[in-house]
Amino acid sequence: MKIIRDPIHGYIEVNDEVLPIISSQFFQRLRYISQTALAYMVYPGMRHSRFEHSLGAMHLAKEFLNYLSMNNKIDFLTEGYKTLVSVSALLHDVGHVAFSHTFESALQVTKEVYGENIEYYGKETHVKYGLKIISKNSSLFDKLGKESNISDPIKFLINVIGNTPKTEEERLASQIISNFVDADRGDYLLRDSYYAGVGYGSYDIERLKRVLVYVDKKIAVLKKAIPIVEQFLLARMYMYENVYFHSVVGMYNAILSHAISKLIREGKIDLNNIENLTDIKILNMIEETEFRDPILFRKGYKRIKKDITQECMSLIDKAEINNLMRETEGKIIYYEFFDVPYREESEAVYIYDGEKISQLSRFSNLITAVKDLQKAIIVYHVSMEDKVKKYVEILKSC
Amino acid sequence: MKIIRDPIHGYIEVNDEVLPIISSQFFQRLRYISQTALAYMVYPGMRHSRFEHSLGAMHLAKEFLNYLSMNNKIDFLTEGYKTLVSVSALLHDVGHVAFSHTFESALQVTKEVYGENIEYYGKETHVKYGLKIISKNSSLFDKLGKESNISDPIKFLINVIGNTPKTEEERLASQIISNFVDADRGDYLLRDSYYAGVGYGSYDIERLKRVLVYVDKKIAVLKKAIPIVEQFLLARMYMYENVYFHSVVGMYNAILSHAISKLIREGKIDLNNIENLTDIKILNMIEETEFRDPILFRKGYKRIKKDITQECMSLIDKAEINNLMRETEGKIIYYEFFDVPYREESEAVYIYDGEKISQLSRFSNLITAVKDLQKAIIVYHVSMEDKVKKYVEILKSC
Amino acid sequence: MKIIRDPIHGYIEVNDEVLPIISSQFFQRLRYISQTALAYMVYPGMRHSRFEHSLGAMHLAKEFLNYLSMNNKIDFLTEGYKTLVSVSALLHDVGHVAFSHTFESALQVTKEVYGENIEYYGKETHVKYGLKIISKNSSLFDKLGKESNISDPIKFLINVIGNTPKTEEERLASQIISNFVDADRGDYLLRDSYYAGVGYGSYDIERLKRVLVYVDKKIAVLKKAIPIVEQFLLARMYMYENVYFHSVVGMYNAILSHAISKLIREGKIDLNNIENLTDIKILNMIEETEFRDPILFRKGYKRIKKDITQECMSLIDKAEINNLMRETEGKIIYYEFFDVPYREESEAVYIYDGEKISQLSRFSNLITAVKDLQKAIIVYHVSMEDKVKKYVEILKSC
Amino acid sequence: MKIIRDPIHGYIEVNDEVLPIISSQFFQRLRYISQTALAYMVYPGMRHSRFEHSLGAMHLAKEFLNYLSMNNKIDFLTEGYKTLVSVSALLHDVGHVAFSHTFESALQVTKEVYGENIEYYGKETHVKYGLKIISKNSSLFDKLGKESNISDPIKFLINVIGNTPKTEEERLASQIISNFVDADRGDYLLRDSYYAGVGYGSYDIERLKRVLVYVDKKIAVLKKAIPIVEQFLLARMYMYENVYFHSVVGMYNAILSHAISKLIREGKIDLNNIENLTDIKILNMIEETEFRDPILFRKGYKRIKKDITQECMSLIDKAEINNLMRETEGKIIYYEFFDVPYREESEAVYIYDGEKISQLSRFSNLITAVKDLQKAIIVYHVSMEDKVKKYVEILKSC
Repeated sequence: MKIIRDPIHGYIEVNDEVLPIISSQFFQRLRYISQTALAYMVYPGMRHSRFEHSLGAMHLAKEFLNYLSMNNKIDFLTEGYKTLVSVSALLHDVGHVAFSHTFESALQVTKEVYGENIEYYGKETHVKYGLKIISKNSSLFDKLGKESNISDPIKFLINVIGNTPKTEEERLASQIISNFVDADRGDYLLRDSYYAGVGYGSYDIERLKRVLVYVDKKIAVLKKAIPIVEQFLLARMYMYENVYFHSVVGMYNAILSHAISKLIREGKIDLNNIENLTDIKILNMIEETEFRDPILFRKGYKRIKKDITQECMSLIDKAEINNLMRETEGKIIYYEFFDVPYREESEAVYIYDGEKISQLSRFSNLITAVKDLQKAIIVYHVSMEDKVKKYVEILKSC
Repeated sequence: MKIIRDPIHGYIEVNDEVLPIISSQFFQRLRYISQTALAYMVYPGMRHSRFEHSLGAMHLAKEFLNYLSMNNKIDFLTEGYKTLVSVSALLHDVGHVAFSHTFESALQVTKEVYGENIEYYGKETHVKYGLKIISKNSSLFDKLGKESNISDPIKFLINVIGNTPKTEEERLASQIISNFVDADRGDYLLRDSYYAGVGYGSYDIERLKRVLVYVDKKIAVLKKAIPIVEQFLLARMYMYENVYFHSVVGMYNAILSHAISKLIREGKIDLNNIENLTDIKILNMIEETEFRDPILFRKGYKRIKKDITQECMSLIDKAEINNLMRETEGKIIYYEFFDVPYREESEAVYIYDGEKISQLSRFSNLITAVKDLQKAIIVYHVSMEDKVKKYVEILKSC
Repeated sequence: MKIIRDPIHGYIEVNDEVLPIISSQFFQRLRYISQTALAYMVYPGMRHSRFEHSLGAMHLAKEFLNYLSMNNKIDFLTEGYKTLVSVSALLHDVGHVAFSHTFESALQVTKEVYGENIEYYGKETHVKYGLKIISKNSSLFDKLGKESNISDPIKFLINVIGNTPKTEEERLASQIISNFVDADRGDYLLRDSYYAGVGYGSYDIERLKRVLVYVDKKIAVLKKAIPIVEQFLLARMYMYENVYFHSVVGMYNAILSHAISKLIREGKIDLNNIENLTDIKILNMIEETEFRDPILFRKGYKRIKKDITQECMSLIDKAEINNLMRETEGKIIYYEFFDVPYREESEAVYIYDGEKISQLSRFSNLITAVKDLQKAIIVYHVSMEDKVKKYVEILKSC
Repeated sequence: MKIIRDPIHGYIEVNDEVLPIISSQFFQRLRYISQTALAYMVYPGMRHSRFEHSLGAMHLAKEFLNYLSMNNKIDFLTEGYKTLVSVSALLHDVGHVAFSHTFESALQVTKEVYGENIEYYGKETHVKYGLKIISKNSSLFDKLGKESNISDPIKFLINVIGNTPKTEEERLASQIISNFVDADRGDYLLRDSYYAGVGYGSYDIERLKRVLVYVDKKIAVLKKAIPIVEQFLLARMYMYENVYFHSVVGMYNAILSHAISKLIREGKIDLNNIENLTDIKILNMIEETEFRDPILFRKGYKRIKKDITQECMSLIDKAEINNLMRETEGKIIYYEFFDVPYREESEAVYIYDGEKISQLSRFSNLITAVKDLQKAIIVYHVSMEDKVKKYVEILKSC
């Protein structure tokens, strides 16, 4: 067992059978993929990478299972099963490439603004990439989970990380790593708020762990702990509102996505060969382009100070502004933010009142009052001041 | 005034006249120079950069002056003077290039191991580079300090940062940014321990600020606060012992210094033009070399498990191992660590007992018992296992 | 100036003119009045007193004024005025006697359950007591606020603490110490959650302070900081739900209020002479009564495990259970909890959008979704098990 | 299992078999015995009690054993044994009466200053009292440790808490609860510094737990963790220097010990019947005496501002000042402070280098440089100003 010091969880323990995965090249490269893209333009402390977050998610997955098995008897919850689930958590982001979600934005821009015919699966793109990596490196995983009733560990990882669980074992694992309250969000909220230096992203993880139960094949939270769940969901909402969706953070990520898109369109990034694409390579390539000043030195771009609220979005002619983006090659950018803090659809948070489980909305007025987060910004190179005046005018009326 | 969120100090306020300095390209590039080089190989959270540290040092310099002027009447301590000192702190590390001190190690290796005739000023190299940057960009500074009796702000910055103070004003500034207890160390201890997630690097900054006085033209600490000073000096010592001088951290920094040295020797890094050299560029160049695996993926090198203590160093024939390093081009590396936690020479911590100031050693047994930190390691590429056996044997006897 | 170490605010500075107030007997006695009554039965760390909280409220009042005067020009906001407002905050709880609000409950029980004709002003009782203390000790206050346009400092304190402000100066002071977001709540949320060891009561005080403005004679919060205000109001709500209104905390406070009521009814506590009544005296008197075991040793009482929700309250016949309480002299107790987390009536949180101020509800769905907190419990001495069976039955149906 | 929220350790788990002990009257009374006597006169936050500390010591004892059994195979380390050791830790302070060590000072004053013939065992007095309590309540303990090879649990508790271990099992338990690095100190350092709001009392408990081994029947610390041990020992030293031995803290504890002594001499405290003596009773009795003002309201006493260092102690004629204390009945008090931060005698910290264990002094210069803490103060009622002038003069020369 190896022990890794971590500012969020104190110590993260790594089993001997998991160590080779962490030591592999495809995992080590996560050290060079920043967790929150260019958020450091506004919150300078946010320099942490997907590497630390992935270790943290693994740690929390194990913790969640440990407490579940204290609160419930779950036959299949063996040491081997725990290892498999924790590896699923460890690898849930392994497909991320340079600048994580901003790379996905770059693909979207390439496809939708510049009309290139490329493979793009929205926010699931990194998942697809991840599954490829796992398949390619199957020899690292095929001995995992010996002391469990999982016969095909690779299939397990693929079904769980790909979010297509087929068995009860896979479904529990899926809930552990991807749900409203899960090991992924559980880690990134604590971690991102620590590095940003803001308090509102943190929540009572010690208590949350202890109130998880497994009832009717679902993870549920004891009713008495509803405030903890509310706090968790609100913490995430606040991080979106104030950090991830900070207008200036969005501004630089928007510019970056156009910069990356240009590299793709010019063939400098080969989409068939991006497994090793890290922030380093992108930043290095950007140094040779006109995006050097804004991306590396925070220079040359402005934004229209007034954010575009959901109500005002209809005032913007999408086709027109898309044209403008394309024509100016990203010297004018329209950028939308969208997130659903909580909505009960295929997934929900379940509450256990001692008798049965119900969806959270039955109990929490607070959470049902939470609205989708939606806004947009317009940013522009200073040379485009004249061309954006029109939008400044339009937004005045709103 | 602009406010920057910071995990260590909460908020850092930036005066309007200082903002252009922070926005300049030469300062923004500090975002891409890691504060603690490859310490993240062992402490994954340590991804912070010289950018945040420089802001923090500026903040503390201002705080120290604020409290000094509450405790003493100092005629020349005007708003303008404060700005000048805080800019000195802001820029004290502006000459650092890629990987900070490890780049300096690379210069040393290039000169001493490979015998190249290059400019190298030891640990002062980044100071020399910094003074050049300040001179080149003098228009950014020549209006600073209007409400003060400093007539030549550029000269002030150069004398203070270059540690060649000529006037009382400069000497006070020098003590603020470079002494045993100063704004530089004051910030990096708190910051590095926060990102490492270790507690022993932190100390009571709130109390320390309040007990500073200016007596006999020296900054001194009130006698009742000796424990705080001891704690500060020990915190620094512990950070050296456990983090900066961690054998595995040292191992990777040693390999990195050889990797950079090779880039210098091959002319891929032009020492006459390194102002823009950041971690990104170095890492990108290393990807094309045989050092890619160890530096990017933590692969291929080992170390002799037994550290070489001060007593055993004489067992190693320096000329011989230098030859070996050169011949193997860094496949075998001998690397020394050395730091003086506290020693009263030209500088000392002064204690004020209400009547006069004296050096700390008069009062603190603890601090006088502190010894220099000194050890060495031998690291090697796995292909060199045979060649290092000899050293394994030698060290057994020690 | 004296400096007091405080776990919440780091250091609290006390002006020389305020020191005699803090040194006075009536203020020192607050050391022996616990901030949160018997909450320590469940959260053992909650042993802090009104003394620390009052110092903290003073500190925050000063901080709020400091930031207001940075953000706005307010003519009357002089050093003298600041001192007067901070003393108002310091003394806002000076009328609390033993066990704070639980003593007020005891008065209510005495009047409403046992039908005694006593003076009782609900939750304002401690305010009335406080005003008496201020009047009696006027010589301590009549020199305060010299450098201000407040001519009668005693009147100022009485109008502000009594919440009957007459002038703009008094109204601002009133908002500082008593509003939805104020120095009182600002301190107790941070403090109570620190001592309880729970995270959900804390909020971003550093940011909150910086976003306060004074517009249209009201304190308002900058629009961009709405999330901070939401977090503040929710933090308070969570503290009520989980700590102050914890069923077991309520249980012991309910028993204590009956114990105190008995001491009143038996004349052991003289209501005309309670200024010096501290927890110590009450606990000492209780040692001689049948309430010794439950109050001192957590022994002898139980509660019906099912809390009575707002919907079920109508099932309980109030007259009947009041009779039962009286007859059993507190061996059976019915106890209601009630709090309004946020409602816009005479008071509201104001938001400033750069042009005008509006009430928070215009912007925050979240806060308008917050409901009143209301529930009740029934607790009983183990000897009464038979008599409460009836209520156990009634509550089953709900 | 019951879970108790704790600000220091997050959650403390209580086994079902231990719950009756915690619920017992003799343990619940610890809620009313302050951990650090009158330290709250200077550090207002220090209102915590022996109750919380005892729970914390129990928790750490269990944690230490858990990690020991991970690092070593120890045959007798069963669940039953762990329970017994954790109960030993829980009860190590159960004999403390009002104001903990200050009561012991009061006994000393009574015996040595006033010449009364009373039972007094120095700092072991509370241990003797504790053993009596355990013997009296043996039915609570005689079923403990079923799954262990301890046949007589009462004898085990008495030998361990009384620090007279006879067997290997008892000796290990003894080391866990009372050594230089143990569960008692481990808890109180973290706890006292949290409540004081000072940072220097804290240390890296998470790392410390993990580096404990059991070698040659001794608990030892891995060599690589020496800095953690140093930090621990220094943290304790700093807490003594700055908090426990703060001159003003000492002043009020000195007065309190004379106040209590008077109550003893007047027969108001019956030394044969003090098991239920809590702070409450003492404070209540003091209210009727001339010590009311200093103890309750911090009024009436001063101290000679100059502390008496170890070197100057010989200047004070002990017999003479003892007479003065007696004659003035505590209106003049001479009070000595003494603590040994670390000294290797019957006990020592052991370091394990992978081969054998050695005493810490072999490795740590720092710790061997630590000196005993020794000083004295003279405090006096303001009416005695004339009589202490002599001592002011004497101390001038020193």
